[in-house]
Amino acid sequence: MSEKIYVGVDVGGTAIKVGICNQEGELLQTYEGPTETAKGTDVILQNIAQYAKNIVEESSYNWGQVEGVGVGIAGFLDIPRGYVKFAPNLKIRDVNLKDYLEDTLQVKVLVNNDANVAALGEAWAGAGKGVDNCVCYTLGTGVGGGIIIGGKIVEGFAGMAGELGHIAIVPDLEAIQCGCGKMGCLETVSSATGIIRMAKDAVERGDRTTLSLVENIMAKDVIDAAKAGDEVAARIVNRAAYYLGRSMAVLAVVLNPESFIIGGGVSKAGDFLFDQIREVFEKYTQNEAKDGVKIVAATLGNNAGVVGAAGLILRA
Amino acid sequence: MSEKIYVGVDVGGTAIKVGICNQEGELLQTYEGPTETAKGTDVILQNIAQYAKNIVEESSYNWGQVEGVGVGIAGFLDIPRGYVKFAPNLKIRDVNLKDYLEDTLQVKVLVNNDANVAALGEAWAGAGKGVDNCVCYTLGTGVGGGIIIGGKIVEGFAGMAGELGHIAIVPDLEAIQCGCGKMGCLETVSSATGIIRMAKDAVERGDRTTLSLVENIMAKDVIDAAKAGDEVAARIVNRAAYYLGRSMAVLAVVLNPESFIIGGGVSKAGDFLFDQIREVFEKYTQNEAKDGVKIVAATLGNNAGVVGAAGLILRA
Repeated sequence: MSEKIYVGVDVGGTAIKVGICNQEGELLQTYEGPTETAKGTDVILQNIAQYAKNIVEESSYNWGQVEGVGVGIAGFLDIPRGYVKFAPNLKIRDVNLKDYLEDTLQVKVLVNNDANVAALGEAWAGAGKGVDNCVCYTLGTGVGGGIIIGGKIVEGFAGMAGELGHIAIVPDLEAIQCGCGKMGCLETVSSATGIIRMAKDAVERGDRTTLSLVENIMAKDVIDAAKAGDEVAARIVNRAAYYLGRSMAVLAVVLNPESFIIGGGVSKAGDFLFDQIREVFEKYTQNEAKDGVKIVAATLGNNAGVVGAAGLILRA
Repeated sequence: MSEKIYVGVDVGGTAIKVGICNQEGELLQTYEGPTETAKGTDVILQNIAQYAKNIVEESSYNWGQVEGVGVGIAGFLDIPRGYVKFAPNLKIRDVNLKDYLEDTLQVKVLVNNDANVAALGEAWAGAGKGVDNCVCYTLGTGVGGGIIIGGKIVEGFAGMAGELGHIAIVPDLEAIQCGCGKMGCLETVSSATGIIRMAKDAVERGDRTTLSLVENIMAKDVIDAAKAGDEVAARIVNRAAYYLGRSMAVLAVVLNPESFIIGGGVSKAGDFLFDQIREVFEKYTQNEAKDGVKIVAATLGNNAGVVGAAGLILRA
């Protein structure tokens, strides 16, 4: 009998990435094409279907081996129906993506949001391989998240589970308003955007920092300055780490995951950041809920999305 | 074919309660006997087995109909093995309860902790009936909890999931140490013990409150005084409600449950307490994560334990 394969599609605003995985989550082949967002919904949908066909055609596999196609997409979804209510960066509204792709490709299709899918990728074949329960953070422009329990994505009542960036963790006294409208969300302090904001505030306040010499401050500049011993930058990075650690201490007694997996641009700060997170986690977490629990870096990088999308078929 | 039945056992320090449920979680029959904790582990184990036999014998059902026996017990457990590492109130240590009962009763036995089992009872046949995902709080001496996702208990890596009382939610500036040794746990402010402590502190401080006339302050006294318009008592109850609401706002974006179910002695304060919790939840939770989400009272009372224990067999 020929090997079963799983196709994963990661739909971004600029490019659509496609991958073929085997049953173990190994990425066997990849393909990438332009999303062509400007051409509108119909073209985007056709591209998704076409690229999925292309990758299999270009490979040594055939459609008969495809067990299903999983799709990760950023936006507001009705996950069980595979329905896209609104995907802001694609300007897609009210489309049943699952139905369209199943009609076109004649295989089982599952759709989920990009952060959940990336978490599933790491859980299946990345830093969480072999782990049943894990919580994934993606530290980028915002703070994304995904929760895997018993090997499966936790979606929640309205698909809002795993929105870790919107954990209200900063106390009222020092909270600022998040883009979501609420006060004190984790991503106001622990995202790249949050780190940049705190750095700009410090420069404007006239704090003595090497960051005042940087023209267009990026999160990496702040982390580099902190590593180089700049006290103001170090305080900012520590604040980002502090609230990440506090949020993990909460999740440790709520879900008691085996691993916390951290990916995204800010996570490239490495152990300099991770050790500060671990220290806070250690301080605020009960022994029974932290014994053997690991805080580790994501390992799949940009491939987490396609791998996790392929995994939807096996793990949903 | 004769109806299948499910036996649930709720092992307390004083009494062992047993119940028979049908497939819908309806409690068909109950039985209660003394735990006889003072007589030691062997007698306690024999009592559990004997009372399970007794309830079926006294009923119109027979052992052939018993699909399994579920047991809820307070303590540190290895849940998958059904192993009791330490049950402080029973003084039981290092006993494989599941193996003992399966040998004695010759049916499938599952063991889980008392808070998880009570949550499952509410989810199965109580306030969460028909709901797939819910989070249960028990506001008693401490704050207990249980999380149900996809109809099943979330246990976590070391069985520490659902320990909602130990969510570190109180900011450092106003946190006190919890019995667990950590700072700022939810149960330091939202349990009966926490409410009593805040009331005694207020009286000692000389705050003007009717509570200063009460000899041995109980949580109910504080709630009654708050309802009667005592401002100091009202502030204490509001603080208990505030941190409950804040913790639910966190869980709403982590798990996005359909219902928060609140039981335990303190929950008898009713809508006076619940409305304050709802107000905080409303304020701190994103619309998408709170739309249609309910905060409701537990409905099974003291039966939640036996019903949930019986449910282990169907829902584990």
